[in-house]
Amino acid sequence: MSDLQQALDIIGRGAEEILKPDELAARLKLGRPLRIKAGFDPTAPDLHIGHTVLLNKMRQFQDLGHQVIFLIGDFTGMIGDPTGKNVTRKPLTRDDVLANAQTYADQVFKVLDKARTEVRFNSEWFGQMSAVDMIKLAAQHTVARMLERDDFAKRYAGQQPIAIHEFLYPLVQGYDSVALKADVELGGTDQKFNLLMGRGLQEHFGQPPQIVLTMPLLEGLDGVNKMSKSLGNYIGINEPAIDIVTKTLKIGDELLWRWFELLSFEVSLAEMARMKQDIASGQLNPRDAKLRLARELAARFHGAAEAEKAIAGWNAVVRGEGDTSLLPQALVTVPAEGLRIAALLAVAGLAASNSEASRKLKEKAVRLDGELFDDAQRLFMPGFEGVLQVGKRNFARIKLIAG
Amino acid sequence: MSDLQQALDIIGRGAEEILKPDELAARLKLGRPLRIKAGFDPTAPDLHIGHTVLLNKMRQFQDLGHQVIFLIGDFTGMIGDPTGKNVTRKPLTRDDVLANAQTYADQVFKVLDKARTEVRFNSEWFGQMSAVDMIKLAAQHTVARMLERDDFAKRYAGQQPIAIHEFLYPLVQGYDSVALKADVELGGTDQKFNLLMGRGLQEHFGQPPQIVLTMPLLEGLDGVNKMSKSLGNYIGINEPAIDIVTKTLKIGDELLWRWFELLSFEVSLAEMARMKQDIASGQLNPRDAKLRLARELAARFHGAAEAEKAIAGWNAVVRGEGDTSLLPQALVTVPAEGLRIAALLAVAGLAASNSEASRKLKEKAVRLDGELFDDAQRLFMPGFEGVLQVGKRNFARIKLIAG
Repeated sequence: MSDLQQALDIIGRGAEEILKPDELAARLKLGRPLRIKAGFDPTAPDLHIGHTVLLNKMRQFQDLGHQVIFLIGDFTGMIGDPTGKNVTRKPLTRDDVLANAQTYADQVFKVLDKARTEVRFNSEWFGQMSAVDMIKLAAQHTVARMLERDDFAKRYAGQQPIAIHEFLYPLVQGYDSVALKADVELGGTDQKFNLLMGRGLQEHFGQPPQIVLTMPLLEGLDGVNKMSKSLGNYIGINEPAIDIVTKTLKIGDELLWRWFELLSFEVSLAEMARMKQDIASGQLNPRDAKLRLARELAARFHGAAEAEKAIAGWNAVVRGEGDTSLLPQALVTVPAEGLRIAALLAVAGLAASNSEASRKLKEKAVRLDGELFDDAQRLFMPGFEGVLQVGKRNFARIKLIAG
Repeated sequence: MSDLQQALDIIGRGAEEILKPDELAARLKLGRPLRIKAGFDPTAPDLHIGHTVLLNKMRQFQDLGHQVIFLIGDFTGMIGDPTGKNVTRKPLTRDDVLANAQTYADQVFKVLDKARTEVRFNSEWFGQMSAVDMIKLAAQHTVARMLERDDFAKRYAGQQPIAIHEFLYPLVQGYDSVALKADVELGGTDQKFNLLMGRGLQEHFGQPPQIVLTMPLLEGLDGVNKMSKSLGNYIGINEPAIDIVTKTLKIGDELLWRWFELLSFEVSLAEMARMKQDIASGQLNPRDAKLRLARELAARFHGAAEAEKAIAGWNAVVRGEGDTSLLPQALVTVPAEGLRIAALLAVAGLAASNSEASRKLKEKAVRLDGELFDDAQRLFMPGFEGVLQVGKRNFARIKLIAG
């Protein structure tokens, strides 16, 4: 397999759409590092692994020798809501933008190679732009074309107002590609319309049009809905390694392959195919495949050592093998007079409420340090340490302190 | 009748629509000079009396003590056609704009009072405007509202492209009212949508919304179509007094009252009503009513003395009364060996061609100094002076010079 074909395979892995593949091949043949643009909101980010699908693709480009541009679209964020209708959407200040950029940096460089990442802000060129140039930019697309964008089309048909400046924002995003001389722009499938704007504007400004690569949105833990904070079906990239492991081990068998494709660097598509076969023939336990992905993800965000500790901890509790002291210890504040088990499980987040905890207790589903525990009256006092477990996969190593 | 009512009557005369009359009355009651805005294209103007309908209204405001702002919309003119599709619409330079402004001044101050006219250019505020401010401006109206404008609605329905910057131009015009703190904006009925933009934007910027006054488009000489250069049914304001008189005297009886309403300062609506009655009762010849309007128009653009000369000349030639020497004399260049009558009539512009002139000669429709002339062979030599006439109303006092 040629280097080019290998690069195309890596780039194409998991991609929803590439516009256009032949242009991508031609651009790769130029032999120079390509400029890979991806745009990000300037609002304070708190990333989950769904967000890393795009970051992973950026990282793959970096590993192929290309230059990634992490573009923070602060220009429109600093305008805020110019209609004045959304009072909660306050304009960001320059300080907000820089603070948010730092928050991004703290997270994304767990995936991206800092040396091959250029962090840019589009206020750099738009802050200087005149009304005249904005008008000239606006002349480059038609109202009809803009109304074809899904959300605009729906709002227009539904007689919901679209303020005219909203027609300018896709052009702003498109012009970023001109300012950055982007070779490729990456984005979610929901961004396709805006990514195509860049192509048109680059041609207008005498640049070869960028290749557009869209990545799908990752399904969350439930395997059905897109991963999102509001649905609670996510793994945050700052979550403890044990949580990343535990949650990953709970996902369904179907979702596993989707996650492998979009989240793993270590397992190639060929290896994935072999693993599938081995599971079908009974040679591989699906749990071990999940364990492999869990280890890779935990290691990505916490390092290999923390990942191993988390895996060992999970083994100790769930499979009864290994040393529970490898689990990270959570401090739980309790009153000086102590708490009974139902209240403690609720306070430690292992049950949704006292009454759910009491029910679990009656169902003999509660364990303390691996042993069945059903003493509803015992008081747990500050200073107590141990591993509490509710059901098969819900556990924590805790230490009680007086609060 | 109160002063206020009198002012409202003068302002309302001939107006198509006032939005809103009660706001206008309240604003007039403030007792200060109001700021009356009217916008004009920055392209080289060559005005006809149709254009003076608006100028007359501006002058009426001036005579009532108000301040008129003659706004030249040079900002968009200097952008040209940003789509790049209309190569003939070149961007105007600053020098073009100033030259065109002078051409306007040479014409409009035949109607307007220079002392109460402020000539402004909207590049004054838009030239400094940033892209951010343009975006904020764009946020003040919705796509749906903009698509309600007649021409946009038709083009959108007809699937003809509307470039997005075209949605910005009405906002630019509207913002001019903010920059100028306009109390009233005048415009043609076709401008109503844009004039209303000003109201909305002024409210957004904390100003009382301007009153909008639209004036109808004047019917041309044919009494049917709007006056326009391309239809040839116009009287240019730089035409010789005799042409203004001759053309005005040719208009139909119905059109006369429309022209009186929109073009006369001297004849009040009450007097118009009396004249109509007098014509109906046979006490007044319609031609004398037309003569009155013709005299007023000729005097406006050429002064009273020239107007009287033109009227006298018309009387002399057409009615055979008075002194033809009062007609303005046109110099006509002829060869040293002279011209025969057919060629002369063509050269002097009294016939469309030699052959038409010959036909008129055979029809006995040509007169020289009031006498029938039919000598096809006579040579007219340099130095000749006389009044040539073709038909009843087509005449000129000429002097031949060698060329």
